[in-house]
Amino acid sequence: MKRSLGRKTLAVPSPVWIVGTYDAAGKPNLMTAAWGGICCSKPPSVCVSLRAATYSHQAIIDRASFTVGIPHTDQVAIADYLGIATGRDTDKFAAAGLTPLAAEHVDAPLAAEFPLSLECRLSHTVELGLHTLFVGEILDVKAEEEVLGENGRPCIDQVSPIVFAAPQGAYFSVGPQIAPAFDVGKSIDAPSEG
Amino acid sequence: MKRSLGRKTLAVPSPVWIVGTYDAAGKPNLMTAAWGGICCSKPPSVCVSLRAATYSHQAIIDRASFTVGIPHTDQVAIADYLGIATGRDTDKFAAAGLTPLAAEHVDAPLAAEFPLSLECRLSHTVELGLHTLFVGEILDVKAEEEVLGENGRPCIDQVSPIVFAAPQGAYFSVGPQIAPAFDVGKSIDAPSEG
Repeated sequence: MKRSLGRKTLAVPSPVWIVGTYDAAGKPNLMTAAWGGICCSKPPSVCVSLRAATYSHQAIIDRASFTVGIPHTDQVAIADYLGIATGRDTDKFAAAGLTPLAAEHVDAPLAAEFPLSLECRLSHTVELGLHTLFVGEILDVKAEEEVLGENGRPCIDQVSPIVFAAPQGAYFSVGPQIAPAFDVGKSIDAPSEG
Repeated sequence: MKRSLGRKTLAVPSPVWIVGTYDAAGKPNLMTAAWGGICCSKPPSVCVSLRAATYSHQAIIDRASFTVGIPHTDQVAIADYLGIATGRDTDKFAAAGLTPLAAEHVDAPLAAEFPLSLECRLSHTVELGLHTLFVGEILDVKAEEEVLGENGRPCIDQVSPIVFAAPQGAYFSVGPQIAPAFDVGKSIDAPSEG
């Protein structure tokens, strides 16, 4: 039996990503965003949605640049803090004990301590209502050596990203691998009745 | 030491969501999308990105409607199949043993067997390159009673959504809760040096 829950953002899973920007004075800032995801393969792009009231919103527009940091589950308190505090009157890098590094390809900072970071050039800005959706073309991915698997790509067990459950307002880890993609579904054929 | 990995969609985690549409003939269809996420709180909205070559792409545009089904980890083979097969010449509902139900608020089908489904009215279409980003306003959420927690909201442990690791091409489950949101970060204060 299906229950109707109304017009709500009750979807799972959401990522816990940290948006890095410079403000007008050049101060590096970080802000947590759970509304976002990969949105295009060519050009490789991600989107993040921010409220116009946030300090990072104008910073993304001003420099047409942002980074997306992917924190480790061990950094969950930092990730949560970066979503509570505002960079308007706080040096959030210093408060969280993080080290700002200049991105190589865009005019934005990344945090040295996050295992994985994307350098993004703003490509599209879409006003949706309370949130603005920013699409960023990924110009580079910076990874800590320790999180790379044998294929040279980040291994999710090592990156250990945080999962946000919006309906519960809680953070979760990623569990064990359950199946390879583009493979386990091959066992399903058309039914015998055609 | 940071390694530069280039212009790639090497981000985690991604959702495994199933987009439901009717084709021009009214046949219900399902397609797996891992490029997507929640993108606005008011109006509540999600985005999914599809290649123009997919059968579902035109179907979303034609009826300005789609559903987002969130399959359970036990349905991972079905979810994978729905991303491999095409609805152009196959009844994917029948092949996967799924039951189409008409959405209540939009002109699209949902699968009775998924624990959670969103009914979405197309609000924005953004051409990004290989993928088109579709934003859908969530007009209702349909949940199986069994997945609802004491607060009447979906519990991630019961929904048991699938996590896609794009860098590895593999599916993962969600692990244990690690912290409450908007709370665990309160322990971080400005450093003593100000």
